[in-house]
Amino acid sequence: MMIVKLGGGAAINLPGIVSDLAAQQKQGAEPVIIVHGANALRDDLAKRLSIPLRTLTSVSGITSVHSDDEMIDLMMMAYAGLRNKRLVELCQQNGINAIGLSGIDGRLIQGERNSAIRVREGGKTLIVRDNSGKPKSVNTTLLRMLMDAGYTPVLSVPIIDAEGHAINTDNDDVVALLHRELNATKILQFIEAPGLLTERSNPLSLVERIEKESLPAWEERVEGRMRRKIMGIRRLFESGAPQVIIADGRTEHPLQSALAGQGTIIG
Amino acid sequence: MMIVKLGGGAAINLPGIVSDLAAQQKQGAEPVIIVHGANALRDDLAKRLSIPLRTLTSVSGITSVHSDDEMIDLMMMAYAGLRNKRLVELCQQNGINAIGLSGIDGRLIQGERNSAIRVREGGKTLIVRDNSGKPKSVNTTLLRMLMDAGYTPVLSVPIIDAEGHAINTDNDDVVALLHRELNATKILQFIEAPGLLTERSNPLSLVERIEKESLPAWEERVEGRMRRKIMGIRRLFESGAPQVIIADGRTEHPLQSALAGQGTIIG
Repeated sequence: MMIVKLGGGAAINLPGIVSDLAAQQKQGAEPVIIVHGANALRDDLAKRLSIPLRTLTSVSGITSVHSDDEMIDLMMMAYAGLRNKRLVELCQQNGINAIGLSGIDGRLIQGERNSAIRVREGGKTLIVRDNSGKPKSVNTTLLRMLMDAGYTPVLSVPIIDAEGHAINTDNDDVVALLHRELNATKILQFIEAPGLLTERSNPLSLVERIEKESLPAWEERVEGRMRRKIMGIRRLFESGAPQVIIADGRTEHPLQSALAGQGTIIG
Repeated sequence: MMIVKLGGGAAINLPGIVSDLAAQQKQGAEPVIIVHGANALRDDLAKRLSIPLRTLTSVSGITSVHSDDEMIDLMMMAYAGLRNKRLVELCQQNGINAIGLSGIDGRLIQGERNSAIRVREGGKTLIVRDNSGKPKSVNTTLLRMLMDAGYTPVLSVPIIDAEGHAINTDNDDVVALLHRELNATKILQFIEAPGLLTERSNPLSLVERIEKESLPAWEERVEGRMRRKIMGIRRLFESGAPQVIIADGRTEHPLQSALAGQGTIIG
């Protein structure tokens, strides 16, 4: 089983990825679980609805969206609604029998709500609570039942906490948990860059290969979103991932290219 | 198996219906399929996004929303996204292991796109094509698999056509088709009125009981949305429905009251 994570950027070539995937499946490739984002869509919707997107920066330097109730509404519209259903539609048009689910559905992905986040704001340290948390368990019975019946799960946030409340979480953590519970043979991540870059805006700084042993050193070296990404990848290997490929989601054949060795191969 | 159809009006007491349903289920009641609307939510979202809602009136007098691509986007956000996921969340909080699906997911509800609708506009008859159609078949294997595993399906539009395109359809038709394929013992419909009324704005004009044989006569007598509703109910009986209850979705205990005989009982 392969996990395919689709970044939520506006430039990700979803039709290209899905058509590549369909071609793979026709050749009898292993089953796939798709995990997708929709941050560009969410941000655009927030803007059109005049909903301010408040971001929090934790004392440890991690930036995240402040997930109040309105933000969960937005996520349900942008992630579990528009992006998820258009993606499922695209799969169906390509002959992939996709089924779109959020982590709430059938308690597919249960998490633990963050009790509080310590953030720096205006020189002060504040304690903020919101509807965000960490994924802790997967309803593998449901996922396996669907996959055994030939369906391709297309998953999105929000996930659900023990009390049944919708919470936001990081897709990297979802992917790591899915891998831990289901043992993927390969994890593909499509982003809006040629792969991992040592210099943010320089495509020529692409790192073609990273040994998993050197991930902690990489984590020290980079910052912001990239740091978070490396953290996520490190966690994947802690859960025993055999290989992770970070590839360009913007090309004509993103999945075909990634499987042919384009992007950053980590393992 | 009971089908519960929830109208998409803003005043429908969803927490009340879900908590009534949970109480029923705890007493070992038969499984349920929920079909929900979200028209108030969709209209509100359209307004906030400045998307004009164009309605079509067919030459036979039936009014429907013009389902262009933007409208399908809106439906994915409002129906399959926000309303579906909040409803699933509510079910989960009440101990009902709900799973929310659109008709696209796993080709759950496949339909046939309307080739063209003849509409009257400005004194002329125009031919309009859009993304709307009629539901024709249900993926009963998927529905039964989920229900046998203890899940409560929570269904919404859009549905899917043979080519894999998302299309809008009428929930009354979806309910009739579900009944035809799965043989419900009872069909409950929650609306923003005490039941069927002979005078639109007069709650005292409630019809407590309708014999199914008199439905065609009723259809002749009423107009607009109510006519469409009666047409839908007539189709339910054509598919062999044993009983249909149209009940007030705005009361404190809508489902409990409906099962105790409040509303309009048709059979």
